[in-house]
Amino acid sequence: MDAALTLYSYWRSSAAYRVRIGLNLKGLDYALVPVHLVRDGGQQHAPDYVALNPQQLVPVLRDGERVLTQSLAILEYLEETRPQPPLLPADAAGRARVRALAQLVACDIHPLNNLRVLQFFDRQWHVPQAERDDWVLHWMREGFAAMEAMLAASADTGRYCHGDAPGLADCCLLPQLYNARRFKLDLDAFPTLRRIEAACLQLSAFDAARPENQPDAA
Amino acid sequence: MDAALTLYSYWRSSAAYRVRIGLNLKGLDYALVPVHLVRDGGQQHAPDYVALNPQQLVPVLRDGERVLTQSLAILEYLEETRPQPPLLPADAAGRARVRALAQLVACDIHPLNNLRVLQFFDRQWHVPQAERDDWVLHWMREGFAAMEAMLAASADTGRYCHGDAPGLADCCLLPQLYNARRFKLDLDAFPTLRRIEAACLQLSAFDAARPENQPDAA
Repeated sequence: MDAALTLYSYWRSSAAYRVRIGLNLKGLDYALVPVHLVRDGGQQHAPDYVALNPQQLVPVLRDGERVLTQSLAILEYLEETRPQPPLLPADAAGRARVRALAQLVACDIHPLNNLRVLQFFDRQWHVPQAERDDWVLHWMREGFAAMEAMLAASADTGRYCHGDAPGLADCCLLPQLYNARRFKLDLDAFPTLRRIEAACLQLSAFDAARPENQPDAA
Repeated sequence: MDAALTLYSYWRSSAAYRVRIGLNLKGLDYALVPVHLVRDGGQQHAPDYVALNPQQLVPVLRDGERVLTQSLAILEYLEETRPQPPLLPADAAGRARVRALAQLVACDIHPLNNLRVLQFFDRQWHVPQAERDDWVLHWMREGFAAMEAMLAASADTGRYCHGDAPGLADCCLLPQLYNARRFKLDLDAFPTLRRIEAACLQLSAFDAARPENQPDAA
């Protein structure tokens, strides 16, 4: 075990899930500290955790004394400090493509659908469950449609989002597809996404990172 | 002029504004193509633009034949292809810190408050203007409170978000503060953010990128 690495994670958080995949792809062992996002009014709001991450979100990665936040920043940090195997291609154009695909998920789908947003609709606006679900499905459908178009049209797409090695975009896509299945999104219109998902799930790095395989899974 | 670079931009888009700042900080000239996000039902939905960016969002940067999407991916691409002056520090820990601050804005504030989300509330849910504004202010306040805490607590914070040279985090912070002022958010609780904003606005790179200084400004 790389004694230095500790991940603060919640089994069903898709941002934490991204980092678990990245750690596994790089073959890095890590200690896991579960942070239950609902229990105790949300353990991410406890003073000790707020001191670690004022955003009160998971994941946090500790590397020795360093405290790192934001899943994509953490994955880039791992890429720079533990470069093998790489999560990003070597060329600038390829790196930009992979980062754009990752950010399509991490900026334009996931933030609209995470727990704190759905809690806001429930508690502040009293939006019924069915309409909250419509909201979630709307942004997933819109984001996935663009991602499917981008992947299907590009010769850079391979067995995975970029070529034939898994990387940063796959780290983001798989958790988002997991979320989509939770919300029963019809995935028929996204054959390339489903094909890449199936390829990823054959790898132990992705399988071990799945929410169901976490020690804190319900 | 670096004849290769063309930015598809909308004057008030904060994602496009980030890239304008980055281009200016690096001293790169570029051609600007305005994409009006409201006129003609939204010019980002026109077939020619959808072919360029299936996400139907600004910005897009063309570098010769390369088409780049997602503001943070574009800024990282510029950093890799035109490294001087740098937008990221040289050390991995510093780079992770700057990226996390940038993503705090780009993942956890901006996506909740952009045009397509507010149009959804208006058109799908008929949420009154006052409640839509409350929503916008809520996420700005929450994100800025965390960012203020992170910046105020860190010895890495200097004249700008990281040390005494402007960089990627500042590229994200300034547009978000511009948005906050549009929505009349009380910024009294964020003295560090305001101090950094004032320092940035003394630089011509930031001033020239401001929405009011764009050729397509209303």
